[in-house]
Amino acid sequence: MPRPEPDTDIAATPGAAAVPALLDHARALTNPVLRSVIDRLVPPMDTVAAYHFGWIDAHGNPAEGDGGKAVRPLLALLAAEAAGASAETGLPGAVAVELVHNFSLLHDDLMDGDEKRRHRDTVWKLYGPAQAVLVGDALFALAGELLLERGTPESARAARRLNAATRRLIDGQAQDIAYEHRERVSVAECLQMEGNKTGALLACACSVGAVLGGAGDEAADALERYGLHLGLAFQAVDDVLGIWGEPAVTGKQAWSDLRQRKKSLPVCAALAADGRASAELAQMLAADAKRTDDRKSDAENGFDEEEFAARAALIEEAGGRRWTQEEAHRQHESALASLDEVKMPDEIRERFVALADFVVVRRH
Amino acid sequence: MPRPEPDTDIAATPGAAAVPALLDHARALTNPVLRSVIDRLVPPMDTVAAYHFGWIDAHGNPAEGDGGKAVRPLLALLAAEAAGASAETGLPGAVAVELVHNFSLLHDDLMDGDEKRRHRDTVWKLYGPAQAVLVGDALFALAGELLLERGTPESARAARRLNAATRRLIDGQAQDIAYEHRERVSVAECLQMEGNKTGALLACACSVGAVLGGAGDEAADALERYGLHLGLAFQAVDDVLGIWGEPAVTGKQAWSDLRQRKKSLPVCAALAADGRASAELAQMLAADAKRTDDRKSDAENGFDEEEFAARAALIEEAGGRRWTQEEAHRQHESALASLDEVKMPDEIRERFVALADFVVVRRH
Repeated sequence: MPRPEPDTDIAATPGAAAVPALLDHARALTNPVLRSVIDRLVPPMDTVAAYHFGWIDAHGNPAEGDGGKAVRPLLALLAAEAAGASAETGLPGAVAVELVHNFSLLHDDLMDGDEKRRHRDTVWKLYGPAQAVLVGDALFALAGELLLERGTPESARAARRLNAATRRLIDGQAQDIAYEHRERVSVAECLQMEGNKTGALLACACSVGAVLGGAGDEAADALERYGLHLGLAFQAVDDVLGIWGEPAVTGKQAWSDLRQRKKSLPVCAALAADGRASAELAQMLAADAKRTDDRKSDAENGFDEEEFAARAALIEEAGGRRWTQEEAHRQHESALASLDEVKMPDEIRERFVALADFVVVRRH
Repeated sequence: MPRPEPDTDIAATPGAAAVPALLDHARALTNPVLRSVIDRLVPPMDTVAAYHFGWIDAHGNPAEGDGGKAVRPLLALLAAEAAGASAETGLPGAVAVELVHNFSLLHDDLMDGDEKRRHRDTVWKLYGPAQAVLVGDALFALAGELLLERGTPESARAARRLNAATRRLIDGQAQDIAYEHRERVSVAECLQMEGNKTGALLACACSVGAVLGGAGDEAADALERYGLHLGLAFQAVDDVLGIWGEPAVTGKQAWSDLRQRKKSLPVCAALAADGRASAELAQMLAADAKRTDDRKSDAENGFDEEEFAARAALIEEAGGRRWTQEEAHRQHESALASLDEVKMPDEIRERFVALADFVVVRRH
């Protein structure tokens, strides 16, 4: 059965165009609270955090950075509204989830040795590894503080869900690192890892907002499933960009995920396929693992640019790119199906739908 | 007014002799729960954590390590009993506090570059920095999980207190690192830093146990003050050992804190004193800061052993060692005074007193 090209069927959805304004609004609501909790940190952690969020530059001067897209805060605010409360009711959840997200960015950049994020030096690169560890820890602790200091049963339930999601986030990072050193990772293992690493926190943004808004566990769980599928769709798109994305757009090197030997979905799907390209890829990756010393650069390990291009071509030929694009759409459909399990105002449902569309139509 | 030598007046207290058995009992209660929550971690984090706690050796074979003294678990269990509940009621708090303590050890060893702990390689040294970051994060998250999954109002209050203490722990580590790069730190700043870094979690062990045992906030706060003073007494003793402790006993290099340029209590007190020794020490530390490159070893920076001995002698001559020993006793007395604010069975009170004595009579 022929499928339409991934970009075309969804781009026809008019709602996605409205999402940037929704994200701007979420960021405008979230940022003042975020700034006020960051102010609770003792020096120099407050400065390091302000740099990470893009509020100041490397010299301490005010900057115009926006600190990322605010997808998670938007989900928490929408979920509170879905539960019949005001968006503001979900605000502590929006900020707490954003704090946990940035805790994981600070630590992951250090663990992965990534020197750039949002086109700027990462915190460990600029301030040293100790500050990246410490400020990451502080953001994690602030997230719990923000929820628990309210002392209501709802905020305790929200804190419990956020804590569980953070555990999954950490599990996902552990799996991601472990898989880099394995020659073969199944598609199921990859999806489980990505569900932990990306899905769990987007899922939690929804349920935390819903719980703070007064929703019962059943509705919160359904919205959590929406967020999980949204996250898996998002990650599938990201995995395509991680290999074939334009460096000027992604802010990362070309073939970025291949350089890090990430076992992302396109790689796992290609390895699971039949045929010559899959077999050749498997052989190549096995040989790569043997000639790779993680402490050395690609050039030192003897990798040149053509070799990454050759691996990317084999992955595409084995169907890994196509499968991942289709997976993004399957997850998108599952996200919308989960949405149908929850009663909510039509206007809010349309925004959730628009956000799901937006996530999948990103240039891939 | 002459004071008796620090070791003699307290060692006369018979209770301190009973503490090792109490610690063994606390460890026996805590370890099975601790092992079961560590089993929740995905590989290889479960193995790395088991190594850190001393349950396996570097080759994965079972080991007889005890994972530390269990002072914090004992406090939590005693506090639950002080509130009129069973020791077991405080068990989730005992384990949660121990998890947070070990989260901080994993991250601090990495930040401080410490290669040995309890006479074994530290986790970052054996498994690499990424595993130290990741497993530390996981222990922090497990602590919250363990308290919040119970879903009772008491466990939410306990989680809130634990979270606040963890924030102070992180603040203290940030201050400790920042102070290493300053020539002068006041005694008040040092006490505040040590209250955060050491006092807050010992304080929290008490209040979390009390809250889980059904205590109101007033009693929990008083027990928290006991724990804070206990922690400051403990740290004062530790600061003396950090300069003058026997390497064979402490498991650290001679003059350990001076090598790291720690502004510990003896240093701050010596710098705050009048006289020739204090002035000479100040001059020396200022000159040290100029000739020190943190990325190099002491030998590379041109420090020899005699120089550390000379600094230790000046600190002692300026009264820094004596002042710190006396401070341990002042804090010990404050701890006992806080204990008097809480109604509890005599038998439990005696154990708290014995523990305070035990902390101060450690060989200093």
